[in-house]
Order: sequence, then structure tokens, then C-alpha cells
Amino acid sequence: MEIPYKIYLSESELPKAWYNLRADMVNKPAPLLDPQTHQPMTAKDLEGVFCEELIKQELDETTAYIPIPTEIRDFYKMYRPAPLIRAYCLEKKLGTPAKIYYKFEGNNTSGSHKLNSAIAQAYYAKQQGLKGVTTETGAGQWGTALSMACSYFGLDCKVYMVKCSYEQKPFRREVMRTYGATVTPSPSMNTAVGRKILEAHPGTSGSLGCAISEAVEVASTTPGYRYVLGSVLNQVMLHQSVIGLETKAALDKYNVKADIIIGCAGGGSNLGGLIAPFVGEKLRGEADYRIIAVEPSSCPSLTRGKYVYDYCDTGMVCPLSKMYTLGSGYIPAPNHAGGLRYHGMNSTLSQLYADGLMEAVSVKQTEVFEAAEYFARIEGILPAPESSHAIKVAMDEARKCKETGEEKTIVFGLTGTGYFDMYAYEKFHDGKMEDYVPTDEELKKGLANLPQV
Amino acid sequence: MEIPYKIYLSESELPKAWYNLRADMVNKPAPLLDPQTHQPMTAKDLEGVFCEELIKQELDETTAYIPIPTEIRDFYKMYRPAPLIRAYCLEKKLGTPAKIYYKFEGNNTSGSHKLNSAIAQAYYAKQQGLKGVTTETGAGQWGTALSMACSYFGLDCKVYMVKCSYEQKPFRREVMRTYGATVTPSPSMNTAVGRKILEAHPGTSGSLGCAISEAVEVASTTPGYRYVLGSVLNQVMLHQSVIGLETKAALDKYNVKADIIIGCAGGGSNLGGLIAPFVGEKLRGEADYRIIAVEPSSCPSLTRGKYVYDYCDTGMVCPLSKMYTLGSGYIPAPNHAGGLRYHGMNSTLSQLYADGLMEAVSVKQTEVFEAAEYFARIEGILPAPESSHAIKVAMDEARKCKETGEEKTIVFGLTGTGYFDMYAYEKFHDGKMEDYVPTDEELKKGLANLPQV
Repeated sequence: MEIPYKIYLSESELPKAWYNLRADMVNKPAPLLDPQTHQPMTAKDLEGVFCEELIKQELDETTAYIPIPTEIRDFYKMYRPAPLIRAYCLEKKLGTPAKIYYKFEGNNTSGSHKLNSAIAQAYYAKQQGLKGVTTETGAGQWGTALSMACSYFGLDCKVYMVKCSYEQKPFRREVMRTYGATVTPSPSMNTAVGRKILEAHPGTSGSLGCAISEAVEVASTTPGYRYVLGSVLNQVMLHQSVIGLETKAALDKYNVKADIIIGCAGGGSNLGGLIAPFVGEKLRGEADYRIIAVEPSSCPSLTRGKYVYDYCDTGMVCPLSKMYTLGSGYIPAPNHAGGLRYHGMNSTLSQLYADGLMEAVSVKQTEVFEAAEYFARIEGILPAPESSHAIKVAMDEARKCKETGEEKTIVFGLTGTGYFDMYAYEKFHDGKMEDYVPTDEELKKGLANLPQV
Repeated sequence: MEIPYKIYLSESELPKAWYNLRADMVNKPAPLLDPQTHQPMTAKDLEGVFCEELIKQELDETTAYIPIPTEIRDFYKMYRPAPLIRAYCLEKKLGTPAKIYYKFEGNNTSGSHKLNSAIAQAYYAKQQGLKGVTTETGAGQWGTALSMACSYFGLDCKVYMVKCSYEQKPFRREVMRTYGATVTPSPSMNTAVGRKILEAHPGTSGSLGCAISEAVEVASTTPGYRYVLGSVLNQVMLHQSVIGLETKAALDKYNVKADIIIGCAGGGSNLGGLIAPFVGEKLRGEADYRIIAVEPSSCPSLTRGKYVYDYCDTGMVCPLSKMYTLGSGYIPAPNHAGGLRYHGMNSTLSQLYADGLMEAVSVKQTEVFEAAEYFARIEGILPAPESSHAIKVAMDEARKCKETGEEKTIVFGLTGTGYFDMYAYEKFHDGKMEDYVPTDEELKKGLANLPQV
């Protein structure tokens, strides 16, 4: 059967349930702990911050398939199923015998996969009768996605945007405004935690960790509001499983078996969503795959971090999660892949990595942009800096196949487009982009204040 | 048969030939005339400026179907067939019995339909053994599309970008640079015609007409280069017929008969491409449709222009075309829909309009942005200002159906996304957007220097 350039599943083939990988894991991810008592968080403990149904999903380690509500599936139909694209042109240009596929999540206004979870979270907030939600955003993709989702369901949306992204991406703010959201650069003077961070680090360019602390504070002190998060949490990884389920369905439809699956890793939700059904098969002994997480060398939580309990946010108000972390006080250099500037990693992915079920590599910023531009010129799509981390490693693997003559099938996640990242591309074109690799000393400093669990 | 949210044709259903509407017209569009002698231009006359194969297509009034070369179809497969989307959410929100469909051309990095012709023109330039091409761009979508196409075929690409767009859209330039193009704000001091325009209108924000003059001059004075144009010409309308052919195939597949077809009109290529097969049926007496062209009230060539021979460019170096025009000296107010700031209209569309086969309306900038934001919040897609002209009128027609209770089927062209137009959205949000409607006196002035044919 000839494989088209773009495999589009029909809307009836859209997954009817999300897949909860934890149900198939023998070594479950460690539970969230209360930041004060260090006891496992219960649903009740989380109620002040999160929506009820999302807490259930967060804590559910046994239900393998969780039905996707009709209202969410209807919204998904506006931009899903997303295409699985066969990179014929890239293969030809590289002269590789490898077969390269990428799951493209950029065909929606948020420009990324973030919308998959945003619409779910907004739906549950609406169901609960809330007035609005608060959140953080790095590169701005999550904030855009959430503002779209809130606008659809008529919810108010307050976004705390990492300051360096806020400045680098003025137009992202305007997109969120188009969807009716309010956007505040973080750290801000609006919150107690923001004022504290600014006092300790005057002039800081912010981080996802800081912005999370601010958004959580606002949610927990404003009646009718809850906090929602675009990555890191297992509920988000659950919603993102729609990526992997569609990818697997599309491959199965054409009898294609993947050998290597590659994704970029910030907080871990896109990677976790992409690989979930494949890792499920691996765990059940039905198939084997090489899984590769790609992170920026400036924020190397998997490759150079520690697997311990840590705060999810810089302000230390969130629950503790056992994860690969650089320390919640680590503020990464202003890498242009804002979505990957997070000190930790989703706890499920951390467990998979600790168990040897997943590999990880880190790559430098300039080589990522070289790969991004190469890819854009061949495949047409101008990728987000985050996604380009996966492109870089997929191309490396394809080149290895050229050397060895192996016809491997490589699948990677192209999480989004770079239309709002042209400032970064400009720096790259002007030769003004710098690579940053933290020294061991710097990493030690970040890990000095871990909670004693 | 239930109609999905998005109708995707398969790659094998991608049209194998473009449709040349002129072959079915009894009243053919008037020929291009030499600007000096006022005699019809022959292929030989055009050779110094245009690619040979494209000249053939420009002058061909008899071949109804012109095969799409395999190399172009292969490129098309990277982003086509484009979806025809049923606007279920918009219908519900408007409470209209009308059925609304839109053909979405924004799912590619150029962000618009422009790529359909760019890749064709780059292909023929490459076939002819040229070194590179020159062009103009308004909003930047055409320049981006051409730079992508040139990069794919390894051609050099020199873009003259209308100055006000160059300033409003700095990131557009960076996208073109990513694809290896050079971008110059127009009018510039690089060309004789640019220097002349700057002398006559110091501080001008430029226009498509000016930029065309500059690009033509560079092409005709640089060995191995030709000029390519993103709209206005009949060859472009020919390539864009792929939009209409796919739209009609998708509607036919689900037994849907359109009543009204709506498109925005700048130079006319997207509108011409969308309506071509439908007008063909109308001309052959096989079906009837209302066709509506929508233009900005600040540049109302169809609704307030004159149907006469005029220069295609401000510098008066291009051939004369018989068209609805505001005069080649008319410099439109800096409307944010840069792609619609052209003084004239494609000659085929002009003939159709003169023959009563098409209607035209003009709409004001702020009401267009109101419609754009409304649409974005309901249908998710953040539209380009140009495309939003069609949205505005489609919504007006759907509201009329609500009043009358008629279940009309409305199809409109959503030509592109507004991701690079956030400066305009910002002005709109800040209440700083102005409507501009030229006075009769101003229009008279623009039409004062028509060529005496």
C-alpha cells in the first residue's frame, strides 16, 4: 500500500478514550507529596488549587482508558486528527535508507499540541461551575491554547507569562488578547511570591517555575478560580496521549512498525503523550521500541539532573514530585526554546527513564536551529525551537542509518510551528545565538536546596 | 451522509490539471497591451520579463485544462489537498439555518494560498534554467511563499516588500530569510523607478504597484532573472484554480450544492481560483451561483473604480490591462490587509464583473476585524485580515438567512492565517484602528492619469 505524504485519520477514527500509561506500569511513578508534611497528597489536599475531575485523573493509576467527553471530541474535530507526515523530501535530501515520519501538531492557532490538554482542562473547569482559571506560559503556546479553550467555553483566563518570552514574543500576548485572556509578565508585583522572587533575583528573566508559583497563588486566593498547568502533571500527559494514539493508529493502518520514537522534553507532556501507547506495548511485552527524549543542553534535567523529590515550582508552594530535577531554584539561561526551560520532568517519564525504558540526549541551541532551518527548507514547515530538538536527533539517527545502511523507521513529534519565534531565528541568522551549557558547579548550586524527604 | 468538520480529499484526489476559466468564457478578458505602442502583447514582447512557460499560460484562452507537472503535484502533497471545513460552531453561534463552509488555505508556512502559484512559477523558472526570480510582496504572504518555493528548487529569490508591511511585519522578513531570500523595503533607492517614486512622494509607505515596478526593473536588467507576480495575472488565477477544483470536488463528494460563494479580492487570484469551476458551470448553463467579491472600502477597485485600460504598476513600466482600476497612481491608505492594497483587479474577474456574473461589496477595516475576532473565538482559526473580509460578508449572509429562514449553503475562501498580523490586531484591541473611505475627489485624482487607449 502506497503511503501518502500525509496520513489523515478520519474524524470517526479520533480516539474515544485517553490512554493512562500508569495503569500498565509495574513501577508506578512516586506520588505527589504535601510540601509541608511530606505526606502523599490526597484529592482533598489538591481541591483548593485544581479542578475536581482533573485531580481524579491526576491520582488515577489503575484505569487504562478514560473516555473523552463528547464536548471535547467535538472541539478536537476542529483541528484533529492531526496528520502523520511521511518526510519523503527529507529522506531524499539526507540520502538515508531510514523512513522518517512526524506527527505534526502545529495545525491550530495555538501552534502546538498544547490545545489537546487546554480544551480538556477548560471543559472540566466549566463543568465544575468555575468562573475562570489561572496559568503560566513559557513560549506562549500553552497560554494561547488555554485562552482559546477558555474563550470557547466562556471562562475567564489569567496568564502569567515568563518575562523573557513576554519580551521576545510580543505578538503572542496579542493572540491571547484576541481570545480574551489577560497576560502578565512573570515574575510580577501582583503576587506575594512574585515580589519575593524579584527581591531575591532583581532583573530576572523569569522561568516556568516562577510563573507557576504566581498563577497558583492567584488561583488559590481568588474565589471561583482554579489553577491549570500545561505540562509536567500526569493529567496533562493523559490528555496528550491522543497524540500517540493517533500516531499508532495511523502507523497500524499502513502496517508500519516504528523502530525509534523521538520527542522533545520540557515538562514532558508532549513526549509522554506521543510515546504512551508505544511504551504500553513495551511494558506488556508486545513490541519493542527505542524511545529518545531530547532536551536542551542549557536545561538538562534528565541527562544531568538528580532523581529525587523536589518542588514543582520556584516559589515552593506546589506539591513535591519525585522527578529528574535541576533543583527548583535553577533558573535556566534564556534559551529560545522557552517551552523547555523547566527544571524538572514529569514523574511518569522520570520513572520510565530510571527504569531504562527511555533514553535521553541533550543538544545545543545553535545545532537545533541549524536542523530547524534545514528542515524548514526541505519539508516546508517552519518548526518551533522546542520541536526542533526532536528534528535534530531524528536527522542524526537518519544519518546513522545512511552509514550503516539500516532501513529503520523513525517517528518523531513535531509539536508546533515557529511563527512566533522569529526573534530567535533572527538571532540565529545574525550569528548572535549563544550556546549555553551549565558547569557542574552551577548544577550543584541548583541542587543545593532540595527538600529533605 | 454525515458531513465531517473537515473534509480532506485524499492525495489521489488532488487535481491533475488546473482549470483555465477563460476557455469557457464567451466574452474573453481584453488582451494585455504594450505600454508604449498600445498593441496587444505577444509572447515575444513578454520574454524579457516573464518565464516562457508562464507566458504561454498567460496568453492561453482556449485550453480548458492544463496538466499540473508531477514535480508541482509532489510539492502540493506536502500541504494539499487543503481542508474544506464545515463551520458547525459558527452556524450554531449565529443561530442561522445557513450551512457555512470555508476552504482553508492557511495550513502551510506561507500562511496562505499563495504557495499554490509560487511553486508553479518557481518550477517553470527552474525548467528554463534561470538563476533566480524577483517579485513584490504586500502583506508578505506571497514573498514567503515564493521564498519557500525557490528554496525547494534551489533558485535565488529577491523580494521587494511594500514599506508599510515591512515595518508592520518584521518577522515576515525573517521567515523569508529562513528560506534564503533577500528582502528590500519598497520603494527603495536600489532601482531607477524606486528613486523616481521616492522623489515624487517622499516618505511614502509604498504600495503593491510601486513594488511591482521595482521588481520588474531588477528582473529585466539582471541576466538569468525573471519577474514573477503573486496575483493579478491570469497565470496566477490558473494555478489558484486548484482551490476551486478541490472545493468543488469536496462538495460534490458529499452532494452539497453551494448557493453563495464569497472571496476577498485584492489582485483577484484567490477569488478567481476559488470561483473558477463554479463560474465555469454557470457559463455552461449547468448550475447557478451567487458569487461575491469582497474588497476593502479603502481600496474599492470593483465597487468604485473604472473599467478601462490601465498600468498594472505605479511606475508604468508593466503592460496595460483592461480592468477595474482606481488608477495606477492611486496609493491606498495603509489598510492592515496589505494583500488587498492594489489599485486594479485581474482582467478575467473584471470581465466577469462587467458581464454581471459576479457581485462586489466593500467593507470597512474595523468591521472586518470585529468579524475576524468573532470567528477566531468560535472556529479557533485566527484569520488573516485579508481573509476576514470574506468572513465578514459570509457572516452577514448567514444572518440574513436567520431573518428569512432560508437554509442557504454559503462557501467562502479562508485564504490564510493572521499570525504575522498581530500588530494590526493590537491596534484593533487598543481602539486605534481607523476606517478609511476615499472621497469621490480623491478617486477622481487617482483616475486622472489613465493611459489614452
